[in-house]
Amino acid sequence: MRHSIDLSQLPRSVSFRRAADGGAELIYLDERFLPGEERFCTTREWRRVVDAVKTLAVRGAPAIGAAGAAAVALWAVNEGAAGAVSHGCAESSERFLEALGPVAAEIAAARPTAVNLMWATARMESLAKRLVAEGAAPGEVADALFDEVLRIEREDEAVNRAIGAAGASLVPERARILTHCNAGSLATVFYGTALGVVYSAAEQGKVERVFADETRPVGQGARLTSWELSRAGVPVTVICDNMAASLMRKGEIDFVVVGADRIAANGDVANKIGTYGVAVLAHHHGIPFYVAAPASTFDASLPDGSAIPIEERDPSEVLPQPIDGVDVYNPAFDVTPAELISGIITEFGVFSPQDAAREIAARSL
Amino acid sequence: MRHSIDLSQLPRSVSFRRAADGGAELIYLDERFLPGEERFCTTREWRRVVDAVKTLAVRGAPAIGAAGAAAVALWAVNEGAAGAVSHGCAESSERFLEALGPVAAEIAAARPTAVNLMWATARMESLAKRLVAEGAAPGEVADALFDEVLRIEREDEAVNRAIGAAGASLVPERARILTHCNAGSLATVFYGTALGVVYSAAEQGKVERVFADETRPVGQGARLTSWELSRAGVPVTVICDNMAASLMRKGEIDFVVVGADRIAANGDVANKIGTYGVAVLAHHHGIPFYVAAPASTFDASLPDGSAIPIEERDPSEVLPQPIDGVDVYNPAFDVTPAELISGIITEFGVFSPQDAAREIAARSL
Repeated sequence: MRHSIDLSQLPRSVSFRRAADGGAELIYLDERFLPGEERFCTTREWRRVVDAVKTLAVRGAPAIGAAGAAAVALWAVNEGAAGAVSHGCAESSERFLEALGPVAAEIAAARPTAVNLMWATARMESLAKRLVAEGAAPGEVADALFDEVLRIEREDEAVNRAIGAAGASLVPERARILTHCNAGSLATVFYGTALGVVYSAAEQGKVERVFADETRPVGQGARLTSWELSRAGVPVTVICDNMAASLMRKGEIDFVVVGADRIAANGDVANKIGTYGVAVLAHHHGIPFYVAAPASTFDASLPDGSAIPIEERDPSEVLPQPIDGVDVYNPAFDVTPAELISGIITEFGVFSPQDAAREIAARSL
Repeated sequence: MRHSIDLSQLPRSVSFRRAADGGAELIYLDERFLPGEERFCTTREWRRVVDAVKTLAVRGAPAIGAAGAAAVALWAVNEGAAGAVSHGCAESSERFLEALGPVAAEIAAARPTAVNLMWATARMESLAKRLVAEGAAPGEVADALFDEVLRIEREDEAVNRAIGAAGASLVPERARILTHCNAGSLATVFYGTALGVVYSAAEQGKVERVFADETRPVGQGARLTSWELSRAGVPVTVICDNMAASLMRKGEIDFVVVGADRIAANGDVANKIGTYGVAVLAHHHGIPFYVAAPASTFDASLPDGSAIPIEERDPSEVLPQPIDGVDVYNPAFDVTPAELISGIITEFGVFSPQDAAREIAARSL
């Protein structure tokens, strides 16, 4: 059942670069138009990146982390450093840092649930602070922030390939894999986390088919996971979210793998709404349920999943035409408790959910 | 938490009547246009009723049962009896019966999963056979078939009100009730089965709110259950199918009630796709899970749910725009095993799923 896997057909979701005039720009794929159209947008405006994250033009925890870092660098290179040149060096660096603070805070707050946005902006701010403390001028700090985005992009792909390799060893032969939402190349800079596991296992000839939950209300499975898997040559079947249980009962699912938006210290995982239900169903049917996520998704500051903020989005995502007297509830995420998770697949290996945060912390020091 | 319940705002889904010229006609609500438009269609053509059932203009197991019976009577009154007048009485009655056979078979086959369509056409055919055996002329048989449809319509409402009364006693005070698909007034001639339980409990002041699964891909929950509950004055919140698990985990669901399309001898229940997943989730969270269905939904000829034929519908219901290389799986129903069902609510009372078929058979004799 070896299918020919070709990742060259997958676009990069976000790509940061230097323009000819020395300014910084971010190219991102506006995923709202997929699968019908591959629309790439180029911007120099950090606020436009914030909008892209809020509107789900760019989505997926690792991808919005990289986009958030890029937004900080867009401000630094195109606005912060440029505005600081009229002042003396030490003074202007302090002003640069002061101005950076609220920009980073606004970027970090674009969406509340995924921790990667906070992780990326904190990483950028802390780099800037260290350099200013070492006496760097605003232009030097901006250049360093620019380079840091490129580093985050490279790291993202390397981390995803490591997650893929670690996870592929868990996938049985002729696996029929269920996934929920899109934790693929389109949710990261490139390659994907949960779908990284699929790509790596597929390259080893172990994937018979992926069943993609359509993932209401936004349809990341129907529109994105299906599109990228078919592009890459992995057989894929779209189902409605409510069909997974029936497939499991018929013995047609061997393995479940999903991504994560935030993982608490005890191994509870916040991910796209519906993930928790899939985990309960997998548990009921005795099917392995794995979470694939980079170390940057762990938030050791939260003891358990109950502390993870859950974004509620607009009712129109669920009911485009309101109905008189009818309410809508539209949480974008849910929390899967550690005890329903077979293991968490990271770039450092596969850990039990209970041990993962500690193992990650030990290796990230 | 007593809400003012007003069922006068609910339309009748199907309504059979004699036209001024003596012909028979069926008025049905084309539910494909709800909630935006209440479009009633009037027809004298039995084949148009078959189309309405196939296209889900008329849907819901009890409603398609009544519509199927009406289709048989439309043929008998408007075509069969009219075509038979040129023959001698005994001969013409035989020819009438012979012609009725394939018509009833075609009506019964309009959709495969709900047994009510077979139940209703078998009831009509068996009445016709008995009358012909007793020497009735085609016109007399047609008149009797006409009256039988009116009897089925009256019975449907009476049965549903009995189901409602039996089920309401199971509903706790201040209940937050989850339902899947539409087993409401719109799925029956009037009043509903699962929503009959809701209406009856709401009239007793016991319903705080109903959460309606949107029920992909056709949206019977989002479009129909929400509409009829809000019309009747029952507070209702629409959720995506994948959100029910999270509500259960937060303790926000006290009671689950759904309808049924066919119930096997051992108590396994076929119902709208997604029902089985809801049953597993309710079981995991210790929430009562009830099925509400009339005796006509039982099919004692099938030992268990594995023998129930499951309709697969067009992929375009799931993905309106096909995606190159992407498959779709679209089963319209699934089977919930008896052991996940707290009880089956019928017009004869509430029974354990294991006992229900036997109890129903004893009372239907």
